Amino acid sequence: MEIVLDRRSATPLYLQISRRITALIHGGALPPGFRLPPERRLAAALSVNRSTVLAAYRELKADGLVDAHVGQGTTVQPRRFEPLEIGSVQSFPWSQALARAPQPQDPLVRDLLELTERDEGISLGVGLPAPETLPVETLRTITDRLLGEVGAPLLMHSPTEGHSPLRETIAAVLAARGIVCSPSEVLVVTGSQQGLDLVARVLLSPGDEVLVEAPSYFGGMQTFRAAGARLLSVPTDHEGMRPDALAALLERHRPKLIYTLPTFQNPSGAVLSLERRHRLLELAARFSVPILEDDPYAELRYDGTSLPTLAALDRHGHVLYLSTFSKLLAPGLRVGFVVAPRLVIRRLVLAKQIVDLHTNTLAQVVIDRFIRDGHYGPHLERARAVYAARRDAMHEALQAGTALGVTWRKPEGGFYHWCRLPDGVDQSRLLARAAAAGVSYLPGQPCFAEEGGAAFARLAFSYAPAPHLREGISRFLTALREVAAEPAAAERDRNGTRPLV
Amino acid sequence: MEIVLDRRSATPLYLQISRRITALIHGGALPPGFRLPPERRLAAALSVNRSTVLAAYRELKADGLVDAHVGQGTTVQPRRFEPLEIGSVQSFPWSQALARAPQPQDPLVRDLLELTERDEGISLGVGLPAPETLPVETLRTITDRLLGEVGAPLLMHSPTEGHSPLRETIAAVLAARGIVCSPSEVLVVTGSQQGLDLVARVLLSPGDEVLVEAPSYFGGMQTFRAAGARLLSVPTDHEGMRPDALAALLERHRPKLIYTLPTFQNPSGAVLSLERRHRLLELAARFSVPILEDDPYAELRYDGTSLPTLAALDRHGHVLYLSTFSKLLAPGLRVGFVVAPRLVIRRLVLAKQIVDLHTNTLAQVVIDRFIRDGHYGPHLERARAVYAARRDAMHEALQAGTALGVTWRKPEGGFYHWCRLPDGVDQSRLLARAAAAGVSYLPGQPCFAEEGGAAFARLAFSYAPAPHLREGISRFLTALREVAAEPAAAERDRNGTRPLV
Repeated sequence: MEIVLDRRSATPLYLQISRRITALIHGGALPPGFRLPPERRLAAALSVNRSTVLAAYRELKADGLVDAHVGQGTTVQPRRFEPLEIGSVQSFPWSQALARAPQPQDPLVRDLLELTERDEGISLGVGLPAPETLPVETLRTITDRLLGEVGAPLLMHSPTEGHSPLRETIAAVLAARGIVCSPSEVLVVTGSQQGLDLVARVLLSPGDEVLVEAPSYFGGMQTFRAAGARLLSVPTDHEGMRPDALAALLERHRPKLIYTLPTFQNPSGAVLSLERRHRLLELAARFSVPILEDDPYAELRYDGTSLPTLAALDRHGHVLYLSTFSKLLAPGLRVGFVVAPRLVIRRLVLAKQIVDLHTNTLAQVVIDRFIRDGHYGPHLERARAVYAARRDAMHEALQAGTALGVTWRKPEGGFYHWCRLPDGVDQSRLLARAAAAGVSYLPGQPCFAEEGGAAFARLAFSYAPAPHLREGISRFLTALREVAAEPAAAERDRNGTRPLV
Repeated sequence: MEIVLDRRSATPLYLQISRRITALIHGGALPPGFRLPPERRLAAALSVNRSTVLAAYRELKADGLVDAHVGQGTTVQPRRFEPLEIGSVQSFPWSQALARAPQPQDPLVRDLLELTERDEGISLGVGLPAPETLPVETLRTITDRLLGEVGAPLLMHSPTEGHSPLRETIAAVLAARGIVCSPSEVLVVTGSQQGLDLVARVLLSPGDEVLVEAPSYFGGMQTFRAAGARLLSVPTDHEGMRPDALAALLERHRPKLIYTLPTFQNPSGAVLSLERRHRLLELAARFSVPILEDDPYAELRYDGTSLPTLAALDRHGHVLYLSTFSKLLAPGLRVGFVVAPRLVIRRLVLAKQIVDLHTNTLAQVVIDRFIRDGHYGPHLERARAVYAARRDAMHEALQAGTALGVTWRKPEGGFYHWCRLPDGVDQSRLLARAAAAGVSYLPGQPCFAEEGGAAFARLAFSYAPAPHLREGISRFLTALREVAAEPAAAERDRNGTRPLV
């Protein structure tokens, strides 16, 4: 019975002994009936205290592997494969096993998604497309026709890079956004969330710095945080990222990535001006930092003139472009896409292979057919008209907030009104009161990597129909009026500690 | 003009200077027309060589940010937002940016998946279900009915945990595998590949050890490697993992996970015996190591008696159970599931939220309806009959290999014949010759974390119809005969160095 002890190990000696004997029993080297050496003898052989061997044998007995009887010593028990007695069940210490895992940040997105499953109240909280705008009947007809004509291949695997015809179609769609790329530079992803995660996987290591806008998309920030990155905030105004602040940060730090939503930003609705687009590209090239351009709202402009995407202006090949069909066609189908240099695509593909092999085949083929059959343009027109009307309805309803000190800019596109609340409003009380009144919204805090969100609220006009939007804003403003009229929490606390006079 | 140099930085001083000035220019602190200090003066102020400042100014000039004229010194240029001249484009150094990313292992899975898009030859290489067995018409009818009746919600988001009714349905399906769980212990994942990745994310850190069977599923091993884990091989025989070897490894190492496919293992087809299932559970509990039971072929038994899953026998709550609808219903829909204690599910959900928000809603609802409408059982019966016949056809065709020294065991279920090839066969030559003859198979090497694969070939009987299987095996054996008849590569090399006599 060979037992080698590691005296520098963190594992106590008695456990090392009992584990070794367990292994020998399970391995068959110590058959049932085998008599273990007397404790004293084993202790001497191993140069340990007798109490150490005693403790080891006690462990083995507790596990039912050995039994001890006076005069017979300690013998290996016959193997027992009956379910363990309930009394002896030791539950696996999962919380310990999970403690070392990266701790994802707040489960806000998930909670918001869960809210959408409920039918209560008016949701101004989620950045979802209007279900009424989704081209359900057209997608239904296409799906049925394809399953009838093509059949089983639609239910089989497809390449990790994406269904080849869809990659061509995406390249063609992007030409309209000024992006000239070949299908081989397009990767289909399982929603743009996966695009964020894959980019983080191939570019970021724990401790790396990422520049994000303040405010920025919480899902993106959550992904970079989960990858172990440190987020640095670039201040913004209504024209997007401020170049002076960006320049100063680039000079002091060595970020691995600049993450930006230059067009109808989530949550602010801001559009990065053309001049700043050029400056951002120049600065990033100068400091050799790649840019991830997240552009889900690209085609949702309701007024004004389109600006070229960063990817379209890019002369250094340092922009990764991310977009999705979720805001226009069907968020539930989880189809997005990344455009990047081939070298980067190859690495993203290797990562995607590990993540989910490939994106749902049927969803890709159906979306490809939808676009090829010419439905995309007309659908876009209809959707834009719906959202423009909703934006206007919310904008008008918000006018009543001006007197309360609410300020906002009417966005030219996208899904959101980004409102600055009057000073000193207690956001958590506002959120609770709004919920009680049957309206949800997104408080500003999770949209900021650092401080600064408490004064803001993101109100989505995309999801609810205009009458609901009006009612929702009315309830929101009522809640705000009530909260503003109450003494602030800090004051109440101060009151609490003051003697009554 | 404030410039602070970091003399311990890896960035050359001239670049620190030029970057600082770039930032000041972009930030507006140095407006167009501003005259930079003469080189000598700046060099003195910064205590650097004049050549350092010269190099910095040269950089700025090359970037078009400043211009120098005799007598006027170096002045900041007006901003220029025209596209850069082609000549000045410096392509972003992606290979450098990507160098630090974890390097995924071989792109074998992807290549195999790509092979399935080709129509040439007979594929014995991929573990795919027979397209003819997929219930296309039933799924088509259900999809069309649901899109008509339910409409847009099927295209919207659904909870990260999975569509609630499907989680209930999965719990009910699992009851038939002896697994008693509540829907809250079920997580729907985007194919079981995502399940592997999520488990790796929450349990593994770089450098952790994972025990895998030798051989094991290459996709699983690839995932753990990408998570930075070190794989330790547990030897197996036709009854699966050898407990003596497992015990010895557990005693010497502190693995974070045991990864096993106990039933109709991929690639070996082995079934872990009941006695060994109990021993594995006891050892894992004793050494406090969680088990990931990967069980895609659970319901694909064609003869013999079913054994309980590890999850069904688990008394310590230390088994994570992973399975999928890919082998039976539709691999392209990417729907799998994990069963785990609630604490683990919560962490997996947080990770999944980052990975892809949730699994395709329509696919989940359609699969749920398929099972609830009672199609699952009859479909399973039909699929089993098809696969049993294909297994028999391949088994018979393989008999001709016995004379060549090919040995295998007829599996009682699953998708594969795992063949030991005659000694000394050069696998890469066999693969090439088989490909030339129009038949693909999976060589053993990628199925082993360490050595030992060169003598094996995995031949899938699931995908091709019986006549193709017979023809495929005939071609494979012909290729094997030819390769075996040639002198081995090593011998040829030796011949080459021997003088002709």
